[in-house]
Amino acid sequence: MSKPAEPAPETPCLVIDEGKMRANIERMAASAAALGVNLRPHAKTHKMPEVGRKQIEAGAVGLTVAKISEAEVMAAGGIRDLFVAYPLVTAVKIDRALRLVRDGVRLIVGVDSPAGARAISARAQSAGLELEVRLEIDTGMRRTGVPYGEALELAGFVAGLPGVRLTGIYTFRGAILDGKPTKDLAAAGEQEGRLMAELAGRMRSAGLPIRDVSVGSTPTGLYAGAVPGVTEIRPGTYVFHDRMQAAFGVCGLDDCAGRVLVSVVSRPAPDLAVIDGGSKTFATDVQPGTPPLGLVGFGHIVGLDDAVFERMSEEHGMIRLGSSAQSANLQVGDVLEIIPNHICSTLNLHNRVYVREASGSLAERIIAARGMLE
Amino acid sequence: MSKPAEPAPETPCLVIDEGKMRANIERMAASAAALGVNLRPHAKTHKMPEVGRKQIEAGAVGLTVAKISEAEVMAAGGIRDLFVAYPLVTAVKIDRALRLVRDGVRLIVGVDSPAGARAISARAQSAGLELEVRLEIDTGMRRTGVPYGEALELAGFVAGLPGVRLTGIYTFRGAILDGKPTKDLAAAGEQEGRLMAELAGRMRSAGLPIRDVSVGSTPTGLYAGAVPGVTEIRPGTYVFHDRMQAAFGVCGLDDCAGRVLVSVVSRPAPDLAVIDGGSKTFATDVQPGTPPLGLVGFGHIVGLDDAVFERMSEEHGMIRLGSSAQSANLQVGDVLEIIPNHICSTLNLHNRVYVREASGSLAERIIAARGMLE
Repeated sequence: MSKPAEPAPETPCLVIDEGKMRANIERMAASAAALGVNLRPHAKTHKMPEVGRKQIEAGAVGLTVAKISEAEVMAAGGIRDLFVAYPLVTAVKIDRALRLVRDGVRLIVGVDSPAGARAISARAQSAGLELEVRLEIDTGMRRTGVPYGEALELAGFVAGLPGVRLTGIYTFRGAILDGKPTKDLAAAGEQEGRLMAELAGRMRSAGLPIRDVSVGSTPTGLYAGAVPGVTEIRPGTYVFHDRMQAAFGVCGLDDCAGRVLVSVVSRPAPDLAVIDGGSKTFATDVQPGTPPLGLVGFGHIVGLDDAVFERMSEEHGMIRLGSSAQSANLQVGDVLEIIPNHICSTLNLHNRVYVREASGSLAERIIAARGMLE
Repeated sequence: MSKPAEPAPETPCLVIDEGKMRANIERMAASAAALGVNLRPHAKTHKMPEVGRKQIEAGAVGLTVAKISEAEVMAAGGIRDLFVAYPLVTAVKIDRALRLVRDGVRLIVGVDSPAGARAISARAQSAGLELEVRLEIDTGMRRTGVPYGEALELAGFVAGLPGVRLTGIYTFRGAILDGKPTKDLAAAGEQEGRLMAELAGRMRSAGLPIRDVSVGSTPTGLYAGAVPGVTEIRPGTYVFHDRMQAAFGVCGLDDCAGRVLVSVVSRPAPDLAVIDGGSKTFATDVQPGTPPLGLVGFGHIVGLDDAVFERMSEEHGMIRLGSSAQSANLQVGDVLEIIPNHICSTLNLHNRVYVREASGSLAERIIAARGMLE
C-alpha cells in the first residue's frame, strides 16, 4: 500500500513492471530451449505487439492468438508467424486469414470438425491459396477439439482436402488430470504430452505428415514439453504471471509483473475499505473458491496480509480488513497495489497499461488487441 | 437460433433492438411520471450519449454515472445534467469535476466521508467554485455510503464546508431486504424508500437543506419511488433489460433489447456445442446459482429451451445440449442469440454494438464510455 514514487496515473489502472516481465520472458525462453521445444507464446495475456516482439527476440518462434482479429493486430504490429489456435468456421474469418497469408504472414489456423475443414478448403481453393492447419485434439477439457478417439480418422479426412495443408496437432487443457482439476502439474503435463505424442506417432504410422505437436500452457507446458515427441509449447500467462500461477507454485507473487493500482474511496466501518475498482477493473472469471486452487478473494493485496478482497460490484471493490496496524490505519485516498487472480482477463478490461521502466518512470501503452472478439 | 435476415456482422457481437429499447425507455419514464418522481437513469448500462439523449427526450431530468471519466464522455455527447453517484476523493478527479462545472454542466457528485468532503471543499475553494454534492447513505448493502446511524452528523459537517453545497442524499442497494438478497422487490423497495425519506426528514428538522432523496434501481426503483418523500429514482438496466431482471419478474425475456449473437464453432459430442463467445464476450460477474435468483447458466439461449450455457473460458462458451430436435440439429456455423445474465457488464466488454433499427437494418455504434475506469 505504498504510494508510488513517481507521479502516478489516476486509479484504477494497470501497471506492468518491465523488469519482472523481461525476467519472465527470458526464464521461459531458456526453459523451452533447454527442453529443445519451440516456444509459441499465447498473446492473449498481453494483447500487445510490442510485448510479442520481445518474446520473439528472446527466442519464441512466433505467437499464438485465439481470434483472427487478434492475428490481424499482431501482424500489423510486426509479428509475421502466427497460429490462430481456434477453429475458424465462417467464410468471412477464413477469408481474413487468407488475406494475411497473401500478405506474407506465415499463418496456421485450427480445425476440429469436418464442416470447418471443408469451409477452409472451399475458401482457400477459391482464393487460389493453401492454408496451413493444425488439428485440435480434446485431451480432457471438453471444450473445442475433436474427441481423442476420433482424431486419427478426422486427420486423414483433413489431410486429403485440397487447399488445406495439415502440419500438426495441438491441444489445450490446463491443469486437468484424468478429466478433473488438479494441482499436480507434473502428472497433468506428463499425461497431456504423452497423449499427444502417442497420437502423433499413430498418425505418422498412418502416413500423415504430422510435424508439430503443440501443447499448453503456463502451468503444464514445461512438464508436457519434456515428453519426447512434443515439439512446441504455448504458454501465455507466464509473461506477467498472476495470483493463480503463484498459487500453482509456478512463480512467486514477487514475479507477478501486472498489478492493479486502486484508491481507497470509503472507510465506512473498521473492517471495511471500499476501493475504486470492481468488476469493470478486475476479472471475475476466476472466482474465489474455484477448484483446484480455492483462492481466497479476488486478488492479493500487497502489504495487507490480513485483508480479503471479498466482494465486487461494477465500480466498487469491498475489502474486509483484519486487525493489523496496516489495515487499521488504511485511509480514504490511500493507494493499494493488487495482484489479480487472472491477469489475462483483467488486462482485457483496460484500454491501456502503464509500463514501469527501469528508470522508474511510467510509460502509457495502448493495448492494441484488447477487446478483439471476432 | 434463426439466422438474421439482413447481412449480419461477424460473431460474436452485441445487437440492440431499438424498438424494444424505446419501449423500455418510455415505460420507465411513464412510471416515474405517474409516481411524481424524477427519473435520472444510470448510464452504466448503455455507456452511450445517444441513448442517454433518448432517455432525456422521454422525460429524464439528467443522467447518473459512476466515474468522472464517464461524466466527461456524456457531457461531450450533449448531456448537460449529470450526477456522479460515487465518492470523488482524489484532487485530480475533483478538479476534472470542477472543469465540467466551469464548462456549464450541472454536475452533482457523491460524498460519503469527512476526508472526501474536505478534499472537495479544498479543491472547489481553490478553483473559486462551489460543487453540488449528495451524501451517500448505506441502507444495507455494505458498500460505499456513510452508515445510516452516522449520516445526520456527517450531513451537518458537509453542509458546513465552504465550496460544497449539500442538496440531497442517495443510496443504492438493489434487491436487499434486512441486509440479505431477496426476490421480494416490493418489500425491499419500500424499506429502501422509507429509510431514506425518514432520514431526509430528520435532516430537514435539523436545518439541513435536503431537497433530493434519490434511490436505486431497476428492480426496486418504482417501489422505493412510491414512498412519500422520495424525489428521484436512478434505474439503469431497464433501458435494455437482461436475464437477471426477467428472473426478478421486472420484465419479460421478450423485453430484453440486448442480445449477443454467437456462432457454433464446434460440435464435438451430441451433448456439447462450443460457441465463439466466452468470458471476453459475456460478463461473469453474475455467476450461475447466485442468490437470490439462482440463475442456471450464463445466459438464456433463445429457441433452445433444453440447453444450458454451462461453462466458459475466455473465447469459448460450452453449451450442454438436451435431446430436443433443435439441440440435436445444431451444427457448426449456426448462429445463436443469447440474452446475457447481466447486460451492463457484458456491454462493457464490447467495443461496439449493432443497433437493429425499425427497418431491420443494423447500424454500428461505438460505445463511447466503455472501459472508462477513472
